[in-house]
Amino acid sequence: MSFKVVIIGAVALGPKVACRLRRLRPDAEIIMVDQDRFISYGGCGIPYYLSEDVPDERSLMSTSFHVLRDEKFFREAKGVTVRPRTRALGIDRAKKVVAIEDLESGETSELAYDKLVLGTGSLPIRPPIPGIDLENVFCVSNLQNALDIKKTIVRPDVQRAVVVGAGAIGVEVTEALADIWEIKTALVERLGHIFPRLFDANMASMGERHLEEKGVEVLTGETVLRIEGEEEGGGRVRRVVTDRRSLPADIVILAAGVRPNSSLAKEAGLELSARGGIVVNEFLATSDPDIYAGGDCVENQSLVTGGPIFTPLGSLANRHGRVIAARIAGKEERFPGVVGSFIVKVFDLCLAAAGLSQEEALAAGFDAERVLTVGYDRAHFMPEKALMFLQLIVDRSSRRVLGIQGVGQANDAVAVRVDAVAALLKYHPLVEDISNLELAYSPPFASAMDSVNALGNTAANLLDGLYRRMTVGEAMEHLHGGDEDVLFLDLNAPRQAKPYLEQFPRQWMNIPYEKLASRIDEVPRDRTIVTICDSGIRSYESQVFLSARGYPSVYAMELHLLRKLGLDATTHST
Amino acid sequence: MSFKVVIIGAVALGPKVACRLRRLRPDAEIIMVDQDRFISYGGCGIPYYLSEDVPDERSLMSTSFHVLRDEKFFREAKGVTVRPRTRALGIDRAKKVVAIEDLESGETSELAYDKLVLGTGSLPIRPPIPGIDLENVFCVSNLQNALDIKKTIVRPDVQRAVVVGAGAIGVEVTEALADIWEIKTALVERLGHIFPRLFDANMASMGERHLEEKGVEVLTGETVLRIEGEEEGGGRVRRVVTDRRSLPADIVILAAGVRPNSSLAKEAGLELSARGGIVVNEFLATSDPDIYAGGDCVENQSLVTGGPIFTPLGSLANRHGRVIAARIAGKEERFPGVVGSFIVKVFDLCLAAAGLSQEEALAAGFDAERVLTVGYDRAHFMPEKALMFLQLIVDRSSRRVLGIQGVGQANDAVAVRVDAVAALLKYHPLVEDISNLELAYSPPFASAMDSVNALGNTAANLLDGLYRRMTVGEAMEHLHGGDEDVLFLDLNAPRQAKPYLEQFPRQWMNIPYEKLASRIDEVPRDRTIVTICDSGIRSYESQVFLSARGYPSVYAMELHLLRKLGLDATTHST
Repeated sequence: MSFKVVIIGAVALGPKVACRLRRLRPDAEIIMVDQDRFISYGGCGIPYYLSEDVPDERSLMSTSFHVLRDEKFFREAKGVTVRPRTRALGIDRAKKVVAIEDLESGETSELAYDKLVLGTGSLPIRPPIPGIDLENVFCVSNLQNALDIKKTIVRPDVQRAVVVGAGAIGVEVTEALADIWEIKTALVERLGHIFPRLFDANMASMGERHLEEKGVEVLTGETVLRIEGEEEGGGRVRRVVTDRRSLPADIVILAAGVRPNSSLAKEAGLELSARGGIVVNEFLATSDPDIYAGGDCVENQSLVTGGPIFTPLGSLANRHGRVIAARIAGKEERFPGVVGSFIVKVFDLCLAAAGLSQEEALAAGFDAERVLTVGYDRAHFMPEKALMFLQLIVDRSSRRVLGIQGVGQANDAVAVRVDAVAALLKYHPLVEDISNLELAYSPPFASAMDSVNALGNTAANLLDGLYRRMTVGEAMEHLHGGDEDVLFLDLNAPRQAKPYLEQFPRQWMNIPYEKLASRIDEVPRDRTIVTICDSGIRSYESQVFLSARGYPSVYAMELHLLRKLGLDATTHST
Repeated sequence: MSFKVVIIGAVALGPKVACRLRRLRPDAEIIMVDQDRFISYGGCGIPYYLSEDVPDERSLMSTSFHVLRDEKFFREAKGVTVRPRTRALGIDRAKKVVAIEDLESGETSELAYDKLVLGTGSLPIRPPIPGIDLENVFCVSNLQNALDIKKTIVRPDVQRAVVVGAGAIGVEVTEALADIWEIKTALVERLGHIFPRLFDANMASMGERHLEEKGVEVLTGETVLRIEGEEEGGGRVRRVVTDRRSLPADIVILAAGVRPNSSLAKEAGLELSARGGIVVNEFLATSDPDIYAGGDCVENQSLVTGGPIFTPLGSLANRHGRVIAARIAGKEERFPGVVGSFIVKVFDLCLAAAGLSQEEALAAGFDAERVLTVGYDRAHFMPEKALMFLQLIVDRSSRRVLGIQGVGQANDAVAVRVDAVAALLKYHPLVEDISNLELAYSPPFASAMDSVNALGNTAANLLDGLYRRMTVGEAMEHLHGGDEDVLFLDLNAPRQAKPYLEQFPRQWMNIPYEKLASRIDEVPRDRTIVTICDSGIRSYESQVFLSARGYPSVYAMELHLLRKLGLDATTHST
């Protein structure tokens, strides 16, 4: 009797389990079923297939050595039987069989298993709104959808698009439509900012502004009420109606997130989480020890909060697959959990994050503070330097680092900092660990005091009460409320300060940083002073300096107020 | 009585201490002396000043907001007194005074201190060879040297250079001379490979080969015996004589490493290490609690070995400075130690490392193994992908990760992986922690199974005995020794295998990976089989497959044998 392993789902997790198990258990009989005709493809590459960065769909289904990962490849090279277009109908755990249906012939049969693996992935959330079944309304849930979308967007009469949902897929598809296909695109997000939960509003706003610069209409805090077609209740889509406006649309992409595809597990009586993810232990076994699950259909454990976290990512599916194969083969491997790391390209920007945003950290009960810095991504004297914004989320009382977010150019510079902090998060680092994070240093790659170390230092200064910060929100209230008790002391060069002096004549003064000590008598002692520069360094130093000279009420302006006021910090610093 | 802090050395550590201490102790009197006329500059930028990436020396001495960090700047903006061209002659610890000499006037005087900070940096090692004082023989030890070198290399009669020492500075200066100034340059290294101790020979060889492609003569394992001038014992340099040849030279750069500049500390009776570094505790206090030291003049503690480590880097000087200022101001900050991270640009390549090389790990008594992989730096279906070599150093019995090395394109992709592992090293991670390292994933930035995770997996497979590797050295012996007991089974496409089949007709066979199962009968059972491909993935799978089919002696070829044989892996994989 051979050892039989049945795998349901053949996109990311399934093939990984199958291939590794083949190496660990050469004797096992491995059968993988999938209801789709496409198997073993890089689903995360779909937006790049739409944008033609990936020239054809075969590239997404090929190995790095250009061999198509199809049924024949799995049979001949891997010794794994794949049955595409085959749906799993149900699991009989007592008999240890899976009922299946051949979707071509309609025939049903049973597959016996010794171990069963569920890699059923996720399903797109379809918002309960009228019109989502109209022609040219798509989800981006699998390669078949992608092919259908591609066929549509190449048509010359498709000139307006609406993308619903501003998570990674929504934004990536928006970029593909607007950039390559020059389709006028509106991005609608129900929550207050793009990448909700992943980023805080201030960091997300940089991405929003960049999307707008690229011609995308970004509509946050806006709910889609219905989608209308060319005829009453049918035909091709014509417009999307939100709670604020009507948006013309020749194509609509629904990217309102995904949920675990766990119905098969549920019907089989396996334990599910509140969110509907399959519950697995650190060996990725379900509540039935003969059934494993991984990838988008399970809920992971957060190494930051200790609680459950839903992180549907191809990278985790691959790592899950490896552990599942090892366990089935009797090895002692574990999947410890996830910190939740995330990265996305948005036109010319990269946004990356790991751990918790401040919004999430507060929701999880932490006394969460955030610290924002800006600095160069390599030595400031190197010609190819660029500015990078970093935000650290820390727990005030314990000084524990809960998360990091970064925004910079669309190269790997932000990833260098975010991934290094991501590596630390499971050890529950303190802000001092960020101050001393040892990035490899050489001027073409980092700064002597690297931006991520400066971020840790700034967080420590804030927690220690040395850095007394005024947030952008507070400043805007003072400025636009005309509060003359507050005086903004601009430490930039006179040329830079001029437009603000003109805009806020009673609330703005300018003394260049190097002159502050000699011109201190010009700074009134009976007003609240808010120091401001474009890097955050000089404003902090000057805040400390004025306080030491006995000024009773001094704050340092959180950077990027100037951005809010309409001038970009990047144009300031060079 | 004011609180007096005297700082000796005003390049990297000193200014950091001064500026932070000013913020923490606004009342302190801070005096910084330096024997040089240039202060507070980015010394690590000197090679980029020579290459004109940094347009002028002022850039190295300016803040990121383009203000010159000179004496006046420190006085007016920072409230710090700087005395350039002032040499510290000695420390009287009982009286708590430093004797100083004004190098312009020759006057001597004393500076009293409450706390003293030593930031005396390092001194270039000047090899004891005849001729090192000849005209146009330079060290790269400070900005004055850099100005002198620049003046020389712009001269049209300077056409041949010899650089002695292939550490970071030697190689960076080599690139500047050869690339921008088109000076025919020979790089001579006494030890067996470039970047000795930092990289193992196999990784360093990729840098050596690249230097050669760029026209640099790389001479390793070669000792300089003397330097000769245009006349007997004097004049301008003409040639460098090694134990193997005579190299014509219009300029010679000595970059044979640096040693701690600790003579002042030694004379004052402070404790020094065997290597001559000032011994400091985790607060960076010397054996005299009123004297602190940091930067290149101290020895750090390795967080990998627990032993001493000399890491002269501007990045550490900056972090040391911050901690020293905090301690002097009575705060509880610590400097925990270093893992030893390193990165260097070599023309179009980046080489980076953290922790121990195998050579170093063996020397430190570890049962050290190394694992080499190659993979893409982002999803293989993205057009801008590039190959990246990663090597992990692990302790066999404990599975502890001791270090990582990477070679790839001169962007930030190698840093992403090396810095993430560097962040982990102080926690003494196991190979499984590398398998599960959670790099933020999206196709433009990483792979679903990222190269660094694959590196961890390969290390685990090797330690578990699943991956049975033949090293390049072993293979070369079999091949060139004509050992017909060993058969190399090339799994690449026939077109790729052809040249090897022709070169080694009795030792080479070709079955494309996908065909192996169906053509297994062609593989003889009575010879040792060495599977080979250009990524290491298919060769490993096939080694496992053949073993499972009862082949008694099967090994997987360590990748880049093909490179050794003259074909570059990069040309193979695309």
